[in-house]
Amino acid sequence: MTSTLLKGSGFKAKAAGTGAELEPEFHSATRAEVDGAARLAAAAFDDYGRRSGKERGAFLRAIAEEIEARKAALVERAGLETALPAARLEGETARTCNQLRMFAELVEEGSWVDARLDRAQTRANGPRKPDLRSLLRPLGPVAVFGASNFPLAFSVAGGDTASALAAGCTVLVKAHPAHPGTSGLAGEAIAAAAKRCGMPEGVFALLFDAGIELGVALVEHAAVKAVGFTGSLQAGRRLMDLAAARPEPIPVYAEMGSTNPVFVLPRALAERGAEIAAGLHASITLGAGQFCTKPGLVLMPTGDHGDAAVAKLGELMAQPAKFTLLTAGIASAYAAGAAHRRAQAGVKTLAAGEGASAVLMETTAAALAADPELGEELFGPASVVVRHGGKEELLALARGLGGHLTATVHGTDEDFAEYAELFRVLEGKAGRLVVNGFPTGVEVTSAMVHGGPYPATSLPSSSVGTRAITRFTRPVCYQDVPAGALPLELRDGNPLGIARMNDGVISTQ
Amino acid sequence: MTSTLLKGSGFKAKAAGTGAELEPEFHSATRAEVDGAARLAAAAFDDYGRRSGKERGAFLRAIAEEIEARKAALVERAGLETALPAARLEGETARTCNQLRMFAELVEEGSWVDARLDRAQTRANGPRKPDLRSLLRPLGPVAVFGASNFPLAFSVAGGDTASALAAGCTVLVKAHPAHPGTSGLAGEAIAAAAKRCGMPEGVFALLFDAGIELGVALVEHAAVKAVGFTGSLQAGRRLMDLAAARPEPIPVYAEMGSTNPVFVLPRALAERGAEIAAGLHASITLGAGQFCTKPGLVLMPTGDHGDAAVAKLGELMAQPAKFTLLTAGIASAYAAGAAHRRAQAGVKTLAAGEGASAVLMETTAAALAADPELGEELFGPASVVVRHGGKEELLALARGLGGHLTATVHGTDEDFAEYAELFRVLEGKAGRLVVNGFPTGVEVTSAMVHGGPYPATSLPSSSVGTRAITRFTRPVCYQDVPAGALPLELRDGNPLGIARMNDGVISTQ
Repeated sequence: MTSTLLKGSGFKAKAAGTGAELEPEFHSATRAEVDGAARLAAAAFDDYGRRSGKERGAFLRAIAEEIEARKAALVERAGLETALPAARLEGETARTCNQLRMFAELVEEGSWVDARLDRAQTRANGPRKPDLRSLLRPLGPVAVFGASNFPLAFSVAGGDTASALAAGCTVLVKAHPAHPGTSGLAGEAIAAAAKRCGMPEGVFALLFDAGIELGVALVEHAAVKAVGFTGSLQAGRRLMDLAAARPEPIPVYAEMGSTNPVFVLPRALAERGAEIAAGLHASITLGAGQFCTKPGLVLMPTGDHGDAAVAKLGELMAQPAKFTLLTAGIASAYAAGAAHRRAQAGVKTLAAGEGASAVLMETTAAALAADPELGEELFGPASVVVRHGGKEELLALARGLGGHLTATVHGTDEDFAEYAELFRVLEGKAGRLVVNGFPTGVEVTSAMVHGGPYPATSLPSSSVGTRAITRFTRPVCYQDVPAGALPLELRDGNPLGIARMNDGVISTQ
Repeated sequence: MTSTLLKGSGFKAKAAGTGAELEPEFHSATRAEVDGAARLAAAAFDDYGRRSGKERGAFLRAIAEEIEARKAALVERAGLETALPAARLEGETARTCNQLRMFAELVEEGSWVDARLDRAQTRANGPRKPDLRSLLRPLGPVAVFGASNFPLAFSVAGGDTASALAAGCTVLVKAHPAHPGTSGLAGEAIAAAAKRCGMPEGVFALLFDAGIELGVALVEHAAVKAVGFTGSLQAGRRLMDLAAARPEPIPVYAEMGSTNPVFVLPRALAERGAEIAAGLHASITLGAGQFCTKPGLVLMPTGDHGDAAVAKLGELMAQPAKFTLLTAGIASAYAAGAAHRRAQAGVKTLAAGEGASAVLMETTAAALAADPELGEELFGPASVVVRHGGKEELLALARGLGGHLTATVHGTDEDFAEYAELFRVLEGKAGRLVVNGFPTGVEVTSAMVHGGPYPATSLPSSSVGTRAITRFTRPVCYQDVPAGALPLELRDGNPLGIARMNDGVISTQ
């Protein structure tokens, strides 16, 4: 549970395509630097945590502008570090800015704080009922871990940072070691915005590390009050365990492993099996299969229609395509994981090429039940088709699933009528149910849920969309507190004009 | 992390007043019984978790009625088991029924599910934006631990059970071993209500144990998806650690230790020091000091006004009064804890009698800083007055506090203007700020927050009031899901007429 001393040594990024070292050198944070940054984040929280929603919104908008001002450099550097194509990185830059502005709008409007007022009352029998008012307040400094697969939208200025800053928390980011240059540019954008907006020193800090010591030190630091993480189950669970073992345990919001099962129901399969296969191929291989919502498990009936769709999917997956994975470590884990699964009893390989190729495997419900590892996440452009003998076996497969970010069902209206029970089972297994679509492509909106039962997510929550902001808050109640010491959101006359609950009823009164 | 095998042996309650054994014998649950109950709770959840808010509300109202029908027996038995006076137990019965009806009203109305709808949109550049709708769904079976100090309102049919059942979770209660008879009667009330309302077998189970093995078995059971607990820091932390070490970690909502500091500011002290002392005495000794919101730390300036108020408080605390604590274990822990503190350097005893008497101690800011244990919870009618030299020392004391359920400030308007910084500090230290009142007396309303930073509470949340329901939920999103498979709360036309968010805006559309 204790980390080695941080060494402060230098390291360089490696080009994802070639493995060549990229300038400049980055410097792993020392323990003293981590401690200094955490103390500064705690001191800054006293100020930043009380800035108005309008001030926080202006800061978030300024970050978006500063990122846009660095867009060309970000896309170029991220392209080198991740091998993701420029169009994808441009889209990801836009997404990053959109979500910063979404949170800006949310906190400028202000109703998100869940303000509640219960007015004082005299009671015939017993003491006066006091005036009670409560709302959500920020937790304190949050440690955010950049993700390898979204160098912009889930990294330094990504969704965790945006939602934590929006909530009023200060943020300490651990840059992902696979893209320190991209991280540094995004960190510069946030620092420039903080300066422009007169934010306190320590509202944001970016720290680097080639290994895991920095992450351990951040999660163990007494000043840190919550953690946001996107990455592997192994790393996420390690952080959960560290946080739970602290003298003061803190919540870890970790988005981890998910296989995103796709159920293809019989009538839809008969009507448009080839189209579904094409959609699956696109979704499995999008971003080289490096999305947390990649469909890694396809539940397909036995029989002619299933055979044809699987054959079509196998054909598409076998097309020669050059995939460059994000890091050499991911590429070797992918190759080893795919080889291991292909060698298991009851697993047939339908498509596989040289190197980081797309891999399609086929197995049976019985084989999956015997070896649940076949249903676990394999990061990269691979998927496992599970053939089943019909409704009862399908429902048993669904009931046997662990937690996932998403579950997808392809069907016709008649299918849905027949398989109503499947929806009821899947509601308990995933954070998002997708019908006649594909799970990749996560909209950033009010209603989105990106988070599912463990191991998909560590705690019930969403890391995408406006619901993400509540992760970094705690409720605080004010009993008979005079107006001058009340947050504006709770004052008489509703000066901010927000939606709030008066004696249990929501209105803008 | 593993528990011994549960033995199924018998045990009897002891009268709190006399230590005499009370009939009948209760039976500690065996491991097979725990497993059977947990499996039944999981099976029942598939049904109960989809019952409408109106059905769940009717069930909660029926529980309240069944408790009222057993009121005389409950008050009599609880009186024997806890030595709490009949008037208090009658009040607690009313509170228990009121909170059941509050949650009934909440779920019958239905807006609490935080329904959000983002409609589909076509986009000029890029794919169609899908239809996304989300709401809070129940987590699954919840294990609830009865508290010693509220044999009704925080036990079998108490706030955790009421909020979990309201959310749609099934519930497994571990009866507190100090009041198994009271627990059994409350359990019968719930079972009778479940039968009357046609609820599935397993919607609720009551299990007994003289020791801790049952609690360990419940928290470790794979079917259990969350835990509600009120009790000591030691026991709560043990459950947190067990839950964090599970293959699938689950959230533990534990309400644990809190000392509830009370700050008396100089002008209020000068104006009404004697009145504040009388109020403190009443709050410290209410329920024999066995409330989680008992003021255990009083921050009082040095000087004549402070001396007079402390002398007055000491006089009141020294009045002969017979306190009977809830259990022999609590009484001996109280006696040992008080003796230990009284023996510490820098601690002066201002009032203490024989046996379970009220105890008032006085110390200095420096002594508290040197020995933070003096500021920890001591369950029973004791409190520590900390004398300080003025504003700077007061603020330093406030900044040095850990997490508490409440923090209280007595002051005049001029005091508040001068001590604005104190409110800002206390917002970060407690879940409820009380002005010119006393922390005991926790209203059950929409705006209440009963929960503070660790060690007061394990996770940011409230265990009292309507906010408590969200503890037992997770968000689920439906993407392009046909109407027939959508929960009613998310269907077009808003058939339930609830407040919900459409494209980010709350209304009853």
